[in-house]
Amino acid sequence: MDDPALNLLAEDYSLLTDLYQLTMSACYVGEGIDGRRASFELFVRQLPHPFGYLIAMGLEQALEYLEQLHFTPAQIAQLRATGLFERAPETFWTLLETARFTGDVWAVPEGTPIFANQPILRIEAPLWQAQLVETYVLNAINYQTLVATRAARMRDLTGSDCKLLEFGTRRAFSPQASLWAARAALAAGFDATSNVLAAFKLGEQPSGTMAHSLVMALCALQGSEEAAFSAFHRYFPDAPLLIDTYDTLEAAKRLAQQVKLGKIQLSGIRIDSGDLVSLSQQIRQLLPDISIFASGDIDELEIVRLQTAGASIDGYGVGTKLVTGSPVNGVYKLVEISDIPTMKQSSAKATFPGRKQVFRRVENGTLVADRLGLATEAPEAGEQPLLQQVMHQGDRTLTRESLSTLRQRTAQNVSQLPASARRLDGAIAIPVKISNSLQQLTQDVERSLAASYV
Amino acid sequence: MDDPALNLLAEDYSLLTDLYQLTMSACYVGEGIDGRRASFELFVRQLPHPFGYLIAMGLEQALEYLEQLHFTPAQIAQLRATGLFERAPETFWTLLETARFTGDVWAVPEGTPIFANQPILRIEAPLWQAQLVETYVLNAINYQTLVATRAARMRDLTGSDCKLLEFGTRRAFSPQASLWAARAALAAGFDATSNVLAAFKLGEQPSGTMAHSLVMALCALQGSEEAAFSAFHRYFPDAPLLIDTYDTLEAAKRLAQQVKLGKIQLSGIRIDSGDLVSLSQQIRQLLPDISIFASGDIDELEIVRLQTAGASIDGYGVGTKLVTGSPVNGVYKLVEISDIPTMKQSSAKATFPGRKQVFRRVENGTLVADRLGLATEAPEAGEQPLLQQVMHQGDRTLTRESLSTLRQRTAQNVSQLPASARRLDGAIAIPVKISNSLQQLTQDVERSLAASYV
Repeated sequence: MDDPALNLLAEDYSLLTDLYQLTMSACYVGEGIDGRRASFELFVRQLPHPFGYLIAMGLEQALEYLEQLHFTPAQIAQLRATGLFERAPETFWTLLETARFTGDVWAVPEGTPIFANQPILRIEAPLWQAQLVETYVLNAINYQTLVATRAARMRDLTGSDCKLLEFGTRRAFSPQASLWAARAALAAGFDATSNVLAAFKLGEQPSGTMAHSLVMALCALQGSEEAAFSAFHRYFPDAPLLIDTYDTLEAAKRLAQQVKLGKIQLSGIRIDSGDLVSLSQQIRQLLPDISIFASGDIDELEIVRLQTAGASIDGYGVGTKLVTGSPVNGVYKLVEISDIPTMKQSSAKATFPGRKQVFRRVENGTLVADRLGLATEAPEAGEQPLLQQVMHQGDRTLTRESLSTLRQRTAQNVSQLPASARRLDGAIAIPVKISNSLQQLTQDVERSLAASYV
Repeated sequence: MDDPALNLLAEDYSLLTDLYQLTMSACYVGEGIDGRRASFELFVRQLPHPFGYLIAMGLEQALEYLEQLHFTPAQIAQLRATGLFERAPETFWTLLETARFTGDVWAVPEGTPIFANQPILRIEAPLWQAQLVETYVLNAINYQTLVATRAARMRDLTGSDCKLLEFGTRRAFSPQASLWAARAALAAGFDATSNVLAAFKLGEQPSGTMAHSLVMALCALQGSEEAAFSAFHRYFPDAPLLIDTYDTLEAAKRLAQQVKLGKIQLSGIRIDSGDLVSLSQQIRQLLPDISIFASGDIDELEIVRLQTAGASIDGYGVGTKLVTGSPVNGVYKLVEISDIPTMKQSSAKATFPGRKQVFRRVENGTLVADRLGLATEAPEAGEQPLLQQVMHQGDRTLTRESLSTLRQRTAQNVSQLPASARRLDGAIAIPVKISNSLQQLTQDVERSLAASYV
């Protein structure tokens, strides 16, 4: 093992791919078709339950990967040493030695709502390059799109006054997942992350309260929960106090008394267990002027339940159910090769052929219709094409966007969705109309594929 | 943004923590208790549904993190620049400058089945260090334990002849998640991963077949699916062919004919869609001597369904449902400080106080009973203590274990579990008996906490 910690080095990323991307590339070289112009599109076949939309996210990481893609001599030697490529053409190795990504990329802007079968991204590149990058590009976009969608739904239902804090690092699926989750959550409307490294890398201020362990340690050493609270406030006077280590209401009552006597200044408290509805209401009565934060298995449905039941909560710390769970199952499919449109006909997994564009119609601030057409079609009056060119011949044409740009875009886009798509459960996605040209092309390709079996 | 790709550098890991670990540490320094000996234990409150056991995994990454922990001057400057630590004692920064992890670690070996409330790991260290490392240690162990448990369950139900291949990279929650998932899956019984980087870092051979895109591209350019198969076999004659791009049975029939005519040598095929039961049976009739691999939303329940329905499948490519989903919700709780046992009493989240040990009794090759006791208790006759010391004063005492060691340990351990715990659904965990001493201590601590409110 070269790297026991399974750390990722910047140069590692070219090998962060499925083996078959490399074996297929070698085959393309052998067949002399590696340079053929190929277009692949990334999309979901259906929206994951219970989402009525997805917020596209992760393009930035995909572009950075494409820009930096190259193979080191050591990596090439490692690949050769597997023995798996014994019959691969020697020119395959020559290709890898100088390989760079030289293709074009089209994508919907991060923060855009998308629906089933709509391309989030299209890569047009020499066949072997477009093939090789599949694994990483899917990895980047699938995960951040999941987190961004959840974050956008939570922000949508809480309104802008509620504090939404990303607390998921301990449950995220690896350290890097925690960084990507923090980015996607902040870009889609969260206020802050507790992850110090993520906050620094994103140019943000990290956020946090205190843990039960501090209360327990100071209670054991200094004799009381109040001692723990006082100690923490000596150094962090604005920090919310976590009051549910032993008896939540008892702690709130004592704090209320101290506030009344002017002994402490209290900006907020956090509760992480118990009946959050009744506790928050009782705490509000005792401490009317402070912020009440709740945490512990919070998700969209729990927030709605708490709101409906009349909980008095000013902010949520959201972890597990933001950063883990069922994935967005984006796929990446060949839609055109050397100007020949292609499609897959596998049972229940058929795809639309050809390079496509999404034409979106927003009227009076509401998204009223989406049309999936060919990239060569012109928009009809009032339609906006969603996919924009973000990379040209391997060079980015999209400059990096700030988190605040993404936050604003996400918020504005979500506000344009009809209420039916924004429902937390039983949401109904915007119906996607298939353009006449795309319908025609689909029939033509089906017919020609059928003919190839005659 | 310093590092746009959100890559992780080796030195980044000290900031890969929740802000409150650092603010609490600063508070401990201010109160003069940062050096007090503290013991934290990592465990799950309950087994995640539908598991009847968990396979502990991720200790290796946790130990590597602990060994390497340090803060660079730049990181300390970044922390200061947040302004959040304005009132923190100056000695906090002095502490960070020379900080190393100097504690002891006790843990169950990777590959060991564990149950609710049993410590997977205990850290005994100066309070601030034991506090600071919580976030990373949970991150490392929660995720790998999830993947290892799933992998062990799949291996258990398929038996050793079935090929289990880890194909999850495109759906994993970040690139690093794909590396950790590959490690945990291989350690718990999978045969191989498709992830090239993971395989190389783990000293393994990557594995893979081919994708629909190759069939589609070559079909478009060379006119037929057979041309695609021939092309791929020219360079990778042993590679299984993916035969469901257009018409699975049609492809199998043509291949059978070519095999019969001696035109190709075929070792295996993969199907990724359709009715896997009837397709695999029909393919077996056409091509009796080849390996049939299935992929596409495979998990434990789907494997059982296929087996029960009489599918003829020799191996599975498992992705999404191995590497994503609901997490293992491990927690990390203070159990002792300066020889004073502590516990949390939050509603439904109470913990057992004191440093603990798991005493396991295996009779005639079957795990018959677990007893959760105090670390100071002696094992009874026939009991084995599970937690072993793996780090002493910051130095590892456990040398890195090979994947094959972990595979063997996992397989042997799972074979010792009673059938009730190995059930895929409705599994029943081993009942964990609480020792008399631990019961007594729990009552004592509860009483003393109650007294502190009088």
